[in-house]
Amino acid sequence: MSAGTPGMAVSLIEQCLNPAGDTELFSDRQWLQALLRFEVGLASAQAAAGLVPASAAAAIARACANLELDSADFIERARRTGAFGIGLVDPIRGMLARHDPDALPYLHWGTTTQDAVDTAHALLTKTALLAVLDELQGLVTALRTLAHTHAATPMMARSLLQPAQLTSFGFKCAQSAAALQRSVDQLRTLAPHALCVQLGGAVGNRAAMAHRAVQVELVLAAELGLWSCGQSWHTQRDAWTRLALEASVCAGSLSKLARDWSLMSQFEVGELAETPRGRTSSAMPHKRNSVHCMQVIAQTQPVPGLAASLLDAMTQAHERAMGEWHAELSSWAPLWRRVHGAAAAMRRAAEGLHVDAARMQSHIDALYEVIFSEACSDALTPIAGREAAQQAIEQLAPQALAQRQPLSALLQQWVEITHGTEQARAAAQALAAATDPQHAVRASAACCRELLRTLDAAVSSSCNLEPHHV
Amino acid sequence: MSAGTPGMAVSLIEQCLNPAGDTELFSDRQWLQALLRFEVGLASAQAAAGLVPASAAAAIARACANLELDSADFIERARRTGAFGIGLVDPIRGMLARHDPDALPYLHWGTTTQDAVDTAHALLTKTALLAVLDELQGLVTALRTLAHTHAATPMMARSLLQPAQLTSFGFKCAQSAAALQRSVDQLRTLAPHALCVQLGGAVGNRAAMAHRAVQVELVLAAELGLWSCGQSWHTQRDAWTRLALEASVCAGSLSKLARDWSLMSQFEVGELAETPRGRTSSAMPHKRNSVHCMQVIAQTQPVPGLAASLLDAMTQAHERAMGEWHAELSSWAPLWRRVHGAAAAMRRAAEGLHVDAARMQSHIDALYEVIFSEACSDALTPIAGREAAQQAIEQLAPQALAQRQPLSALLQQWVEITHGTEQARAAAQALAAATDPQHAVRASAACCRELLRTLDAAVSSSCNLEPHHV
Amino acid sequence: MSAGTPGMAVSLIEQCLNPAGDTELFSDRQWLQALLRFEVGLASAQAAAGLVPASAAAAIARACANLELDSADFIERARRTGAFGIGLVDPIRGMLARHDPDALPYLHWGTTTQDAVDTAHALLTKTALLAVLDELQGLVTALRTLAHTHAATPMMARSLLQPAQLTSFGFKCAQSAAALQRSVDQLRTLAPHALCVQLGGAVGNRAAMAHRAVQVELVLAAELGLWSCGQSWHTQRDAWTRLALEASVCAGSLSKLARDWSLMSQFEVGELAETPRGRTSSAMPHKRNSVHCMQVIAQTQPVPGLAASLLDAMTQAHERAMGEWHAELSSWAPLWRRVHGAAAAMRRAAEGLHVDAARMQSHIDALYEVIFSEACSDALTPIAGREAAQQAIEQLAPQALAQRQPLSALLQQWVEITHGTEQARAAAQALAAATDPQHAVRASAACCRELLRTLDAAVSSSCNLEPHHV
Amino acid sequence: MSAGTPGMAVSLIEQCLNPAGDTELFSDRQWLQALLRFEVGLASAQAAAGLVPASAAAAIARACANLELDSADFIERARRTGAFGIGLVDPIRGMLARHDPDALPYLHWGTTTQDAVDTAHALLTKTALLAVLDELQGLVTALRTLAHTHAATPMMARSLLQPAQLTSFGFKCAQSAAALQRSVDQLRTLAPHALCVQLGGAVGNRAAMAHRAVQVELVLAAELGLWSCGQSWHTQRDAWTRLALEASVCAGSLSKLARDWSLMSQFEVGELAETPRGRTSSAMPHKRNSVHCMQVIAQTQPVPGLAASLLDAMTQAHERAMGEWHAELSSWAPLWRRVHGAAAAMRRAAEGLHVDAARMQSHIDALYEVIFSEACSDALTPIAGREAAQQAIEQLAPQALAQRQPLSALLQQWVEITHGTEQARAAAQALAAATDPQHAVRASAACCRELLRTLDAAVSSSCNLEPHHV
Repeated sequence: MSAGTPGMAVSLIEQCLNPAGDTELFSDRQWLQALLRFEVGLASAQAAAGLVPASAAAAIARACANLELDSADFIERARRTGAFGIGLVDPIRGMLARHDPDALPYLHWGTTTQDAVDTAHALLTKTALLAVLDELQGLVTALRTLAHTHAATPMMARSLLQPAQLTSFGFKCAQSAAALQRSVDQLRTLAPHALCVQLGGAVGNRAAMAHRAVQVELVLAAELGLWSCGQSWHTQRDAWTRLALEASVCAGSLSKLARDWSLMSQFEVGELAETPRGRTSSAMPHKRNSVHCMQVIAQTQPVPGLAASLLDAMTQAHERAMGEWHAELSSWAPLWRRVHGAAAAMRRAAEGLHVDAARMQSHIDALYEVIFSEACSDALTPIAGREAAQQAIEQLAPQALAQRQPLSALLQQWVEITHGTEQARAAAQALAAATDPQHAVRASAACCRELLRTLDAAVSSSCNLEPHHV
Repeated sequence: MSAGTPGMAVSLIEQCLNPAGDTELFSDRQWLQALLRFEVGLASAQAAAGLVPASAAAAIARACANLELDSADFIERARRTGAFGIGLVDPIRGMLARHDPDALPYLHWGTTTQDAVDTAHALLTKTALLAVLDELQGLVTALRTLAHTHAATPMMARSLLQPAQLTSFGFKCAQSAAALQRSVDQLRTLAPHALCVQLGGAVGNRAAMAHRAVQVELVLAAELGLWSCGQSWHTQRDAWTRLALEASVCAGSLSKLARDWSLMSQFEVGELAETPRGRTSSAMPHKRNSVHCMQVIAQTQPVPGLAASLLDAMTQAHERAMGEWHAELSSWAPLWRRVHGAAAAMRRAAEGLHVDAARMQSHIDALYEVIFSEACSDALTPIAGREAAQQAIEQLAPQALAQRQPLSALLQQWVEITHGTEQARAAAQALAAATDPQHAVRASAACCRELLRTLDAAVSSSCNLEPHHV
Repeated sequence: MSAGTPGMAVSLIEQCLNPAGDTELFSDRQWLQALLRFEVGLASAQAAAGLVPASAAAAIARACANLELDSADFIERARRTGAFGIGLVDPIRGMLARHDPDALPYLHWGTTTQDAVDTAHALLTKTALLAVLDELQGLVTALRTLAHTHAATPMMARSLLQPAQLTSFGFKCAQSAAALQRSVDQLRTLAPHALCVQLGGAVGNRAAMAHRAVQVELVLAAELGLWSCGQSWHTQRDAWTRLALEASVCAGSLSKLARDWSLMSQFEVGELAETPRGRTSSAMPHKRNSVHCMQVIAQTQPVPGLAASLLDAMTQAHERAMGEWHAELSSWAPLWRRVHGAAAAMRRAAEGLHVDAARMQSHIDALYEVIFSEACSDALTPIAGREAAQQAIEQLAPQALAQRQPLSALLQQWVEITHGTEQARAAAQALAAATDPQHAVRASAACCRELLRTLDAAVSSSCNLEPHHV
Repeated sequence: MSAGTPGMAVSLIEQCLNPAGDTELFSDRQWLQALLRFEVGLASAQAAAGLVPASAAAAIARACANLELDSADFIERARRTGAFGIGLVDPIRGMLARHDPDALPYLHWGTTTQDAVDTAHALLTKTALLAVLDELQGLVTALRTLAHTHAATPMMARSLLQPAQLTSFGFKCAQSAAALQRSVDQLRTLAPHALCVQLGGAVGNRAAMAHRAVQVELVLAAELGLWSCGQSWHTQRDAWTRLALEASVCAGSLSKLARDWSLMSQFEVGELAETPRGRTSSAMPHKRNSVHCMQVIAQTQPVPGLAASLLDAMTQAHERAMGEWHAELSSWAPLWRRVHGAAAAMRRAAEGLHVDAARMQSHIDALYEVIFSEACSDALTPIAGREAAQQAIEQLAPQALAQRQPLSALLQQWVEITHGTEQARAAAQALAAATDPQHAVRASAACCRELLRTLDAAVSSSCNLEPHHV
């Protein structure tokens, strides 16, 4: 029985829920490679700063290139000592001892385990962030297309799950696109403060490298494609946590969208449908599940709990935490994987969405113009005065629903009785305009187009996220 | 680069933090096997109830025994359809089609994916619970031994991290043992209501099996070593969630214990030490980290967030949730793995604990009897009256600390001055008793022994957890 | 501008969301009174145990009876010293100094602030629990009535928000009633372990009262209507937290029910409606909001976060926590108030619920018997064989939906073509039974009645929750 | 019995835990006033835009000025209808009906309850944010002063609660100051996107005000001192939630600092002490609690749970949420009050902090230079080679601790034995430098001063936070 993509470090269930799950995020393989990249990059940067011989840096690079870290051995050492570094450094040391013993004193020099692990985590988070941004931008593009197409497609707006007034489907799409674009912008803004090399040495003061630490940090950052923040963040996790919280905000916006669409996809509502996906149940052949929306909700629902754990883990005592750092490490990847899965699923929902404008209109029709009460009141004010108009509407609206008659017809009858035929004719015209969905949708269409204009300006062309180094 | 125990579905980092991590909990392998066990058991139970031919049940058993589910295929089908069941049923169906086509109509009959998945999760949770109970009982045993040994070992009790009055180390151990034993008892009490077969059919009413559903459920439960609750719990997750919340309470008690011990293991306090574990840092050879306590805190810190996600996931709409069930599924295993890791680490801390009673005494001495103020006041009341005694103590206690002189000596001087030599001699005796740690420790020792008596009664001899079936 | 019921300690917004909000829960007034009750009860119990003179206990009772604690003064002292006890004890001390100075040494004797505060909180929690149980039992009663009435009222069961197969509304009500009754039972079971007198003295070992502590605790518990657990729970919060977690589980079950009913109350679904509540919006006169369901969701949504905070607060160092206890104190009342508000709102929703069975039937009709596919397959198996029957259904079900024709009619045509008129007549009869909602609903009705039988046995007649003392 | 500051909407317990609790934050009084300000401001802005007569706007302003909203009536109406707006609008309507009936049609025109409530909440949040920023800036100032003073005060850095290497107290203060300043900057950056007027009308499309909506929003924002974001954020809560999450990050940084200082204030460590606060316990006169740190932990511990609730509440369906908005409303104020209380308490801790540099030095001395192992190794490398030096240190460091002898003395003996007197003399000099705390502290002092330079640039002179309007 084969089980699990090797080294995915993620369960079958989780993989099932991410439609882009082949993207390798925070795998064990990536982590061990990133740890090795740190050691190679550090020695190289220290050589550039004149702190270690160039030959030693080359030897370390050779050793790491030829080394295959054994995860079982790595785990065993970490369990015994409580330190992740030993399983990393000792095998390199062994390789050096055999081939380049002179380089031994320069391996892992002036650094500490947390430097390696945090930098490796920053590298893996950059990969994850790029994957998240890629899915988000695909989704925003799909939403903008829907918004353009349906800017003036009338549908019921709903409050407390009840029909409220008329809006347009495009406007709803544009609002979600704008929210998600704000998260994209915020993720890009925060990344350079979060995806930084960690280089504090044993206690954060970079004592061993002294004044050359700044240079080493800059060179190392350039080499790894990360940023440098000029100081240790061993136990000050605010900038780092901030990035994950923005991913959590993004999950909130995704969840709102998935909730909306799943409600609109109910059989009894039927305004939306995802791409059909063949038979899913022999007992229920009629089912057409909103699978991608389900995946989004499954992925985002636990994100607030993970975000709370990260916030809680900020309480890291002194210069190295008593477990809170390790707790953060192990909650970090699940959060990013979930946001990635949610963005990927939502994108696929948007890209394959079937919109049933006729069904949307039918729900408007089912309310017999009662949803236009506010506009009808404005329409009748010149004829009957505002107060009388409002009273008539309050009385006739329930009647319209009960008798399944358009409100405008009832109001026109009322004008005829109370103000005569002449006025009724004027009223008819005003009421026709007031109850015309194409007229009513204009407000939403205008809002939609305004949002799209803003988005056109905001959306950058690529998801490139490369630090600019000296 | 080899990475990760195959199919452990858990990252290297997480494995590093669980000292008993070789215990296989919620692995993909176990999950797929449990799904197959469900299908085999169901057909067999339905055969016993006369609902399917015995030959079909046997054919299904054969097919499942010979089948190796391909996880990549399983994932691909689940991603496409949103249903876990297809990747399970279709391969069995293929096997039957080749070897026993007559059994085809009886495969997965009258059931639904969630029946299979929930039952499989109950099976895996039983394994996890047994592993947790095993570690907890080892820990409780170690704590009881410490409590016996140190029932009367005086140490400072501390409130708000400041010395308060005297207690005993044994009493502290007994209190934690009692709290953990309450969790053990509660886990056992709740298990039969949580670790139940799920058998609701498509919408929870067992329509296909009708009145034979009860019998099928009982037989299936007996076969799988689970309980039966006589009804579907597809979207009523209270009993199920309750079990995980008790595991979370247990994590809270473990976290409290690890916090206490890590504080007592600070270099400046030095009352406790875990088993030394060799060199962990070349730059800091003096470090003696409380590695197991660190692991406990790392494992337990995210548990409240996971528990919140499970509580939140209870809001499962109608007869099958729109993602909340899937969210629960994917938060479930991490919670149990963390509680298991925490219990395992705490057990190892307790089993290898070094207790420095002399150092405990030295912290008592460092307070120059000021911590006995309450007892001194009682001692002097017969001689000087309560009010005068209290006033004297309030004045002399700070002096004792400042001058590093025992409070009793200062009080005796005061009695001599205010009440004469005779009384001072009487006071000396009374104060000697009042400031004797061996005397003061008696209250804690008595509490400790009382708790141990209760524990002796409560602790059952084994962690057997087998449902009794008809 | 008057604002807020005096001393309700709860904001206007929160009061707006609890329809039974006049119930006074955890008010400042109640808290201060409970603190005074503790001091009176303690002195009285200590007098009974011969630890303090009866006259002193009487004097303390008098002082407390005549005392009006000034909350501004209480707050000021607590802020300055960090201790809640000073604002409690000093005013009583002042009163005693004026009227019964001899009793002064016996006030607050052998106890500590946390004893008073935890016991007071247990008293207030008992009040809250009784209020919660009262609302829950009213709700369970209303749900049982609905279940009796609608045991065989057919409606669509839904999975992933899509129609699945047929169930009954009564069965859904019975399932929720059973889940809530399990919470009621569990709350009652846990209460005696949680609502206990706290009496640990300065560091939890009851040193001052020594062997008389047990007796004092029992008498005090009897006096206050609480339980005694025979030991301090100053920093072992498991039993206490367990009760709040069960309230959180209950909130989860309430949330599920409110979600279901709000979905069924959507205009487009229209199967349920809450009692109409007059005009709520002049712009939208047609709106009929599910106000009570909204209140339930508003109240329950933050409960998981509060539960997580309580779990997290269990990490209380040594013998008095460094803030975690205070954190627990301030998260405790909000959780109980929310669960109370949710239970009250759900009860009112259930008591005034309008059920539209015709609308439920109309949604069944809209699926043109496709939801009976499983039963149709069974019906045709004797005629056409299982495999052919299933294939026919898979082909014809989508056609039924598309052409708005009953599936049975299409299947009958198919039998006629493939097996001749004779067989078609037999098929007609079998298919009529298979697609009869009244027939299909029997499975759910049976499940419903089984649950009601269990509930009849479980529901106790009152919500009396009085400890039995010796 | 008087209880609670009237209308503070916050319990006695919560008030006790906030040393700046007299600051009125999110009181009922403020909320009702803000709701009235919205109605007045809206009418006035609509008059400016020519949408309502100036006389009507003036009449509405008069009515609101003379109105005292009755909270009991407000609550009763909200409970009955589920809408907050009725208790606001109906009393104004009553006032207008009596005094300015012509203005009636223009009251609350084109708007919805959520517009009023969200805008009111933005107003109250601005007040809260200013109060938080004020406390934070006081705290950052105090920390910068401590950092300046103690930039080169040597102390033990600690990892996993064990001594690691040497750092300076000033560096620790500067790191916290920098983290808090990042939160200050981020709060200021996010405020203009969060503290916006809400003006969406019934369903977010501003239909009634059409193209004049933008102008009305701008004028209203200017009048209320808020920002305008040009669109409704009724159910897109990302920008709003982002601000509260930054407050939560800030709470995390505060919690880390309070944890550090409470650990350093332990009796056995004694490096720090808060301002003494008189007797807090008669039974324990020696206690010197870190009351402000306790308050910080009490306030911050539940913040992650509240943040999770806010994130979870982002899932707001369609154009008005089914309870999630109300849940957000009721979790919002508690989060801000807690962050304010934590900042206020931490500031007071910092402003009154007693630093015991001698005690810090004594803990360095207690490690017998073993913490300088890394530097000693560098010092001996020219004499003995790196490998031999490291081996000697690994052997002699435990000996130094066990024999309570300085590591340098043992190393010198070793050099003398292995390399002769001459070399030993050279070693002596090198080792003296390597083990000199004043030398070792330089790295931390440099880091500290670098951070202070950055802070000097970042800290703006005031906490002014006024939107710039046209």
